[in-house]
Amino acid sequence: MPKLVKELRRAFGFDDVAIAPGAITINPEMVDISTNFDGVGLDIPFMASAMDAVVDPGFAIKLGRLGGLAVLNLDGLHARYDDPSPLYSEIAEAPREAATELLQKLYSQPIREDLVSRRVEEIKSGGAAAAVSLIPASAKRLAPVAVEAGADAVVVQSTVTTPRHISKSLRGLIFSEIVEQLNAPVLVGNTVSYDVTRELMDEGVQGVLVGVGPGAACTSREVLGIGVPQVTATLECAAARDDYYKDRGRYVPIVTDGGIRTGGDVCKSFAAGADAVMIGTPFAQAAEAPGLGYNWGMATPHPSLPRGTRIKVGTSGSLEQILFGPSSKTDGTENLVGALEISMGMVGARNIREMHSAELIHAPSVKTEGKVFQMSGLGS
Amino acid sequence: MPKLVKELRRAFGFDDVAIAPGAITINPEMVDISTNFDGVGLDIPFMASAMDAVVDPGFAIKLGRLGGLAVLNLDGLHARYDDPSPLYSEIAEAPREAATELLQKLYSQPIREDLVSRRVEEIKSGGAAAAVSLIPASAKRLAPVAVEAGADAVVVQSTVTTPRHISKSLRGLIFSEIVEQLNAPVLVGNTVSYDVTRELMDEGVQGVLVGVGPGAACTSREVLGIGVPQVTATLECAAARDDYYKDRGRYVPIVTDGGIRTGGDVCKSFAAGADAVMIGTPFAQAAEAPGLGYNWGMATPHPSLPRGTRIKVGTSGSLEQILFGPSSKTDGTENLVGALEISMGMVGARNIREMHSAELIHAPSVKTEGKVFQMSGLGS
Amino acid sequence: MPKLVKELRRAFGFDDVAIAPGAITINPEMVDISTNFDGVGLDIPFMASAMDAVVDPGFAIKLGRLGGLAVLNLDGLHARYDDPSPLYSEIAEAPREAATELLQKLYSQPIREDLVSRRVEEIKSGGAAAAVSLIPASAKRLAPVAVEAGADAVVVQSTVTTPRHISKSLRGLIFSEIVEQLNAPVLVGNTVSYDVTRELMDEGVQGVLVGVGPGAACTSREVLGIGVPQVTATLECAAARDDYYKDRGRYVPIVTDGGIRTGGDVCKSFAAGADAVMIGTPFAQAAEAPGLGYNWGMATPHPSLPRGTRIKVGTSGSLEQILFGPSSKTDGTENLVGALEISMGMVGARNIREMHSAELIHAPSVKTEGKVFQMSGLGS
Amino acid sequence: MPKLVKELRRAFGFDDVAIAPGAITINPEMVDISTNFDGVGLDIPFMASAMDAVVDPGFAIKLGRLGGLAVLNLDGLHARYDDPSPLYSEIAEAPREAATELLQKLYSQPIREDLVSRRVEEIKSGGAAAAVSLIPASAKRLAPVAVEAGADAVVVQSTVTTPRHISKSLRGLIFSEIVEQLNAPVLVGNTVSYDVTRELMDEGVQGVLVGVGPGAACTSREVLGIGVPQVTATLECAAARDDYYKDRGRYVPIVTDGGIRTGGDVCKSFAAGADAVMIGTPFAQAAEAPGLGYNWGMATPHPSLPRGTRIKVGTSGSLEQILFGPSSKTDGTENLVGALEISMGMVGARNIREMHSAELIHAPSVKTEGKVFQMSGLGS
Repeated sequence: MPKLVKELRRAFGFDDVAIAPGAITINPEMVDISTNFDGVGLDIPFMASAMDAVVDPGFAIKLGRLGGLAVLNLDGLHARYDDPSPLYSEIAEAPREAATELLQKLYSQPIREDLVSRRVEEIKSGGAAAAVSLIPASAKRLAPVAVEAGADAVVVQSTVTTPRHISKSLRGLIFSEIVEQLNAPVLVGNTVSYDVTRELMDEGVQGVLVGVGPGAACTSREVLGIGVPQVTATLECAAARDDYYKDRGRYVPIVTDGGIRTGGDVCKSFAAGADAVMIGTPFAQAAEAPGLGYNWGMATPHPSLPRGTRIKVGTSGSLEQILFGPSSKTDGTENLVGALEISMGMVGARNIREMHSAELIHAPSVKTEGKVFQMSGLGS
Repeated sequence: MPKLVKELRRAFGFDDVAIAPGAITINPEMVDISTNFDGVGLDIPFMASAMDAVVDPGFAIKLGRLGGLAVLNLDGLHARYDDPSPLYSEIAEAPREAATELLQKLYSQPIREDLVSRRVEEIKSGGAAAAVSLIPASAKRLAPVAVEAGADAVVVQSTVTTPRHISKSLRGLIFSEIVEQLNAPVLVGNTVSYDVTRELMDEGVQGVLVGVGPGAACTSREVLGIGVPQVTATLECAAARDDYYKDRGRYVPIVTDGGIRTGGDVCKSFAAGADAVMIGTPFAQAAEAPGLGYNWGMATPHPSLPRGTRIKVGTSGSLEQILFGPSSKTDGTENLVGALEISMGMVGARNIREMHSAELIHAPSVKTEGKVFQMSGLGS
Repeated sequence: MPKLVKELRRAFGFDDVAIAPGAITINPEMVDISTNFDGVGLDIPFMASAMDAVVDPGFAIKLGRLGGLAVLNLDGLHARYDDPSPLYSEIAEAPREAATELLQKLYSQPIREDLVSRRVEEIKSGGAAAAVSLIPASAKRLAPVAVEAGADAVVVQSTVTTPRHISKSLRGLIFSEIVEQLNAPVLVGNTVSYDVTRELMDEGVQGVLVGVGPGAACTSREVLGIGVPQVTATLECAAARDDYYKDRGRYVPIVTDGGIRTGGDVCKSFAAGADAVMIGTPFAQAAEAPGLGYNWGMATPHPSLPRGTRIKVGTSGSLEQILFGPSSKTDGTENLVGALEISMGMVGARNIREMHSAELIHAPSVKTEGKVFQMSGLGS
Repeated sequence: MPKLVKELRRAFGFDDVAIAPGAITINPEMVDISTNFDGVGLDIPFMASAMDAVVDPGFAIKLGRLGGLAVLNLDGLHARYDDPSPLYSEIAEAPREAATELLQKLYSQPIREDLVSRRVEEIKSGGAAAAVSLIPASAKRLAPVAVEAGADAVVVQSTVTTPRHISKSLRGLIFSEIVEQLNAPVLVGNTVSYDVTRELMDEGVQGVLVGVGPGAACTSREVLGIGVPQVTATLECAAARDDYYKDRGRYVPIVTDGGIRTGGDVCKSFAAGADAVMIGTPFAQAAEAPGLGYNWGMATPHPSLPRGTRIKVGTSGSLEQILFGPSSKTDGTENLVGALEISMGMVGARNIREMHSAELIHAPSVKTEGKVFQMSGLGS
């Protein structure tokens, strides 16, 4: 019998790996975790996902003040409705089986240019940097509107994005054109491969979003079969970034986007090569998040093939507490910044780039919680 | 200590793999998903399994109109009873522990030639192509009857089929003879290996069914120890098809048959090399399926060693909705055609043959549903 | 960082593997499944474990008539008590937490030579071959007594047995001496390695029992950390048998002993190289088994470190039904002989030795039952 | 697509491996399990973790009399409070959600030098060797106090310890200085790597603690992403110890610390190369443990980022029974010493160093308990 024609390579997700401690340790307070995208600097390398349940202008202002960067979804409720507040309640109160249908209905309203401008101005007036996301089909039209209104960064984002898109109905978006046209950094995604990352960098973009299918509110893998676990995806794209930097001398940061739930996942993202992380569900749990304890992905409202689901995430604490603690939670969902600093200390990494050299090992996780229950069972 | 004499190779099922997106993407509406078997063309590459709970003449007509092809089981109820309708109710109402025994009894009635003809004529009169399945032992006698009545394709099918069968009691079926004798394409299965696929193609068959043991209603692996996970089986047989085509210039399609539950599984089948998929349980869930919300495999009624079980599958929607949506389900069980087209778009495959080149990675799945519950638990 | 000093090799259990079907198939009724141990012939290659809950003289007679061979435990209740019947009820009725302590007490009674003879005579008077098991420490004294009384085969058995045992308190058992002394085949075990299998064969034994730790009623792995999954153990020992046969011209059968639950496990044992299988729990489920629906391992009554546990197994049917069917169960627990014959037919193996050449693949099992429930959940 | 830049190596935990039995066996009573740290001899190679719920002076005295060595935590309650007894009740009675916060509060009291001396004297007055643990930041100040009071061994311990620590706020602890300064063996940890183990040995320490993240009461992996499974960690550090011994002629014992729950885990630790094991939760279950049926890790009370949790462990029996039996438990949680001796007998290891040569195989565990339930389900 012949060898299999296609050798399958093993891909790794967060739960499959752990970080090995380093040969040198360093005090956490000596660690520098800042990052930046072509001039847009972040004190902490945390971005908030362009999900309607996570980011509204108020949330963006708050995260900006704390040193991070929120991305407002301009394909969602805020670009379709004057006042989306009552819609959040409606979504939260919908019974489980009706939620997707309700989302499909709410997201069928048209997008309004005036609201694009208004949302950017709301964020800017709060003193924070304004980052917005657009799908490729509307980027050409709306990105200039957003930048005109003051947007500091534009994220062009769809489930899978490549610079070479074949289409009959519209001339594909040419990234080099939009990069040149806009007076703001352009981040593009999502991708998971070395090749596409390099091609996107060749187009001149200022950042690449990494991740297809891993999010908690995403079901791309069940529906389409498509997805690459985040650690492998980040390793691949980081390799592309490093090679591109070596070849062209321009360092284009990558952002691990999707599937991050705990401080451990954050730390593993950086060890795999991320320059920043994009947080969805853990930020949807913040008291400041507009989603009222729920979250749903950008592909959930797809009119005929939803690829996501409304999930209940609850509300766990303030955004500040989630990022900086202090915490009395022991499951890794609070003090994400403290966790990153301590982890970098144990690895001996003085900054994000040094963290890229940490050793990742393949070590399938055993859930502590499960162990605990098992042990109690042994007691009298 | 010596090395193990037998090296065990790793085999992969649907849940073990994912599809990596491509370097080029393409608009889903530009994707061509048609396929054909030596003249029998399918607008959509979806076949319905020759299971009594899935296909009756009415279902075959409906699927035919939607562009697919249903296979009617001529070893089952429809070839043994004038009117099987009341039997379906009886099976559905039997208590769990009595179901297999009831099936064993019902399937002990003899097969009638007149019913073979009648069923084919019923399907044809509805305007659809008629495909029927026979076991090897009865193929020589009944296949000509079915073709005489107008059958467009004959499937000769058993758990494991090879062209070299050793038997004392009857002269084994010689596939080349039946292929020559019949004026209709002959599809043969099931197999999972490169060698047998090539040998079957050498016999002149027009299609090969791939899959031993993976179906939801099949327990061959528990009972006999035999089974090969579907992705590996499809990769093997697809390699045989491609090599056979290169050597002999004839392209013989293969059909991944068994174990497909979601759009993701469909897409992975094609990425592994399938030319069509055979759907069981998801079609048994259609409102048009005769099984009244139940399904059982062809080996379930075996008189002394049943290798399958009646399972409750429920009824989820119309066949049209399962195939084409629109859907507000997010678990991949509806709009299978839309899922395939979007997935091919993300991979950059313009047709089924290009989809065969998609990269599959080894990425054990994490159940989204489980994650969701876990996350809700974290909330307050 | 240096490579790990000890490379860990992957070992496989029943649930890790599946049998790939063959390129030739054969009618099940043409399959020959007989086996023999130096003159003691078995029509069917099924032995019953030397466990008190499985084998008493009545069970041994019944299995003998059906073509198999039961092994009576001469370290257990039948060699310690005139009438063990009431003890079985006492064990079955003990509350879960008191069961091990009760077993420890019951097994502290001394072994009586007169009972050794009496049990052998009981089996012989029923017309069956009498096989008995002894621990190494008592084999020298009691094996001659058993053979004198008519025993046809002696099994010398402990958790781990080697021909080189270091001891202060007693001169170790020398297997070559006992083989020479006894006028009956001697089977020895258990072992899991190539080297020990060869050394035991060098001692002249007529059979080797394979398996440390895999049984359902055994907790050696939790308690001692020791154990080798059955498929790997069988592959290793079969390689030793084949090499020994090539070198010395004597074919010494091996018996896969422990962990077998289904027909699938039986078939995989033979595909891995077994000449016979030793069945514990599935036979404890027979109506004829003395254990009243319970089972416990030989190491369970250890006075200070029990390494097993009384488990409830229930009663599923007659021994004949378990072995030969007919069955309406679909989980592989009945018609084990039929399953082996059909599986060999699908592999194209005409006899047990040809079955040794079947291909095993590494294919972690997905529980069908789980899938079924999952699917019902999808219904309306 | 290029190969992944970082190859991930597979790491193994206790549940991933099993010990293969040896080619020679030996009577358990002939096995020597003693070990020693530069003059501090242990009859049994069992140490008790420096956890407040495990070790108080009374427990230390008891374990010392039984031949082992307990380590008293001098960063915990006993060094902060005159009488910690009522605090244990308070912790045990706190509701689950308030436990971490209470621990954070209780551990914010300052450490008192007088209590350091008093605890050591209490242990010594009971006739046992006194071992104490300190964090690196307080070792320089308090270790001399403890040794002055009579401490026989000092353990300097934090989650991740290296001899090269970079710090702004205080001059890092130099291990060679403290080793030279103290008139008692110094054990240092924790680490998991070959390199750091060698560097620590170069500093002159008398023992190295192995293990980051595996403990039942530890959540470092969830919170920080950091952790290495214990079997791989022990194999790495044992290789360093052996190489160091070959190069320098000094044998520095290593202690596997964390994650051990059963006799099987104990045996695997020694097979992987441990000279002693550090037991946490299983000793917290002893009637003599001060934790009243609870346990928590040293990082649980961290003021802003707790990395552990209070877990209920119950009380299972006396310390003597846990160590020496006799037992009627079959899950490996009692008679740990007996388990080690029998396991070494099956492997043919006469002493701990010979046990290091046992073969470990990669054999993912199947939970016996689960199997048992599954089987009962099959019964009538």
